[in-house]
Amino acid sequence: MQALLPAGSADLLGIGDDAAVLRAPDGRVVATTDLLVEGRHFRRHWSSAYDVGCKAAARSLIDVAAMGALPTALLVGFATRGDLPIEWAIDLMRGIAAECARAGAAVAGGDVSSADAVLLAVTGLGDLAGQDPVTRSGARPGDVLAVTGTLGSSAAGLALFEAGLVGQDGHAEAGLDELVAAHRRPRPPYPAGPEAARLGATAMIDISDGLVADLGHVATASGVRITVDIGLVPDNPALHKAAEALDGADWRRWVLAGGEDHALAATFPPGTVIPPGWSVIGGVSSGREVLVDGGISGDKRGLRGWEHFA
Amino acid sequence: MQALLPAGSADLLGIGDDAAVLRAPDGRVVATTDLLVEGRHFRRHWSSAYDVGCKAAARSLIDVAAMGALPTALLVGFATRGDLPIEWAIDLMRGIAAECARAGAAVAGGDVSSADAVLLAVTGLGDLAGQDPVTRSGARPGDVLAVTGTLGSSAAGLALFEAGLVGQDGHAEAGLDELVAAHRRPRPPYPAGPEAARLGATAMIDISDGLVADLGHVATASGVRITVDIGLVPDNPALHKAAEALDGADWRRWVLAGGEDHALAATFPPGTVIPPGWSVIGGVSSGREVLVDGGISGDKRGLRGWEHFA
Repeated sequence: MQALLPAGSADLLGIGDDAAVLRAPDGRVVATTDLLVEGRHFRRHWSSAYDVGCKAAARSLIDVAAMGALPTALLVGFATRGDLPIEWAIDLMRGIAAECARAGAAVAGGDVSSADAVLLAVTGLGDLAGQDPVTRSGARPGDVLAVTGTLGSSAAGLALFEAGLVGQDGHAEAGLDELVAAHRRPRPPYPAGPEAARLGATAMIDISDGLVADLGHVATASGVRITVDIGLVPDNPALHKAAEALDGADWRRWVLAGGEDHALAATFPPGTVIPPGWSVIGGVSSGREVLVDGGISGDKRGLRGWEHFA
Repeated sequence: MQALLPAGSADLLGIGDDAAVLRAPDGRVVATTDLLVEGRHFRRHWSSAYDVGCKAAARSLIDVAAMGALPTALLVGFATRGDLPIEWAIDLMRGIAAECARAGAAVAGGDVSSADAVLLAVTGLGDLAGQDPVTRSGARPGDVLAVTGTLGSSAAGLALFEAGLVGQDGHAEAGLDELVAAHRRPRPPYPAGPEAARLGATAMIDISDGLVADLGHVATASGVRITVDIGLVPDNPALHKAAEALDGADWRRWVLAGGEDHALAATFPPGTVIPPGWSVIGGVSSGREVLVDGGISGDKRGLRGWEHFA
């Protein structure tokens, strides 16, 4: 499979020795690891091997970008059952390689083992390029809150799968296909992470648990109140269409609680010129909670909070 | 579990954000990843959780040292079945933390997921401290071959387990206990990796597949013949005793084919003063094979080779 994995510019010594050697020009390295388990993080009858590969790589690479770093490399552990077709494994590696190429990272190492489960362990590495890492704990009252990437599309796509509205061919009706695609293969905004760091972002997080839950992590770590005005979230007609198709489901639940799009949320000092691609959706004040449209949500009350108070 | 994992000196930002930030003062980072699967790489009734943790960490950290680098950090993915006692997971983390402390590395990140298998994914990172990485491909005719760490002890310990010679209390008879311990918890010689790099080692490898097999990797990568004089391998009375206890098993098979001790083998330019702790056991000449006591073994003929020609 090695031939499927192109070396990247960070690669001084790639796969084939006891370990890889990668450039870390900044003198620091950003590192994160994630597990993806069949049945829990992906389903083989809903996602192609290529999609699973993209998703697995994306999950770690966007965590790197969420620190303000450039993703440089990915290491992949792949546990597989004996009945898994070799073509599936090859397509998986192709997906991983493609997503790494999107993010500008090399596939720098791997290990394969048989197991009773199909499982991926992905470790992402990155370089800060001289910037301070952007943590969850730096948000300050007066900051503005902005997001980039899609919100709720993956969760809506999953709901379409669960409701049986995705055909055998993997497609849904016109206008909903982008949601299905978003669930299968997220498109995280990698360059936006280092961009936010350069702009002086005070806090940043990858939205993997859902917007409100992840902003709750920032509110807790920073000791601030974060307010969200859902009217400022860029409108996505596909979400309204999906809500109709699903008998009046609440599209706001997908936006506020859906995580797998891997969008980025960041807080910026007041007066920061927010670049195109980011949308200001709220702000930071004193407190220790998340308010959506004036209602309490966030880490203490969970999502029921925003439903109740909205 | 985070409280069980002490931060190391490489840790600028540890567990708890989207990713960790680690020092990489050399401007390069060494990285390697390994999977350990229950039933394949460890058995819960033969190894305590603490032992499994040590073994998992050792596996990646010695790969880092085998490049000539100082191990700096470990990231751990842990997949667990619902029926696994929480105490087992806590002891596992304690073992990981203890082995990282032995190697001088921090536990810098982790992920936990439920799965149908108990599985560990460990990623080791390291710093070259200004040295060139020591690969498998630099051995040259005229070099001397040296090893450090134990050879065959883990394999002999496994044979004692398999033969039922280890009691319910986890101990074997006097004189054999060190082999059982070696199988449970290898003691890789981490500092010897950077030491060999400073001495100008031309090639180095972690012995994980067995001495002959791993020297075969070096012989192939370097395009050289490697000769081993088994009489130069430091005598280990416990191996003889285990061979007797196992009705005349061949202790040389454990030395030549046993891998899990995670010893290091390195080649050095002629005239290098080999420091204490290393044993010269052979040399390098022209060819592309491994010879044990003058007989052909190595990658082409496998272990039957040395048995036949010895």
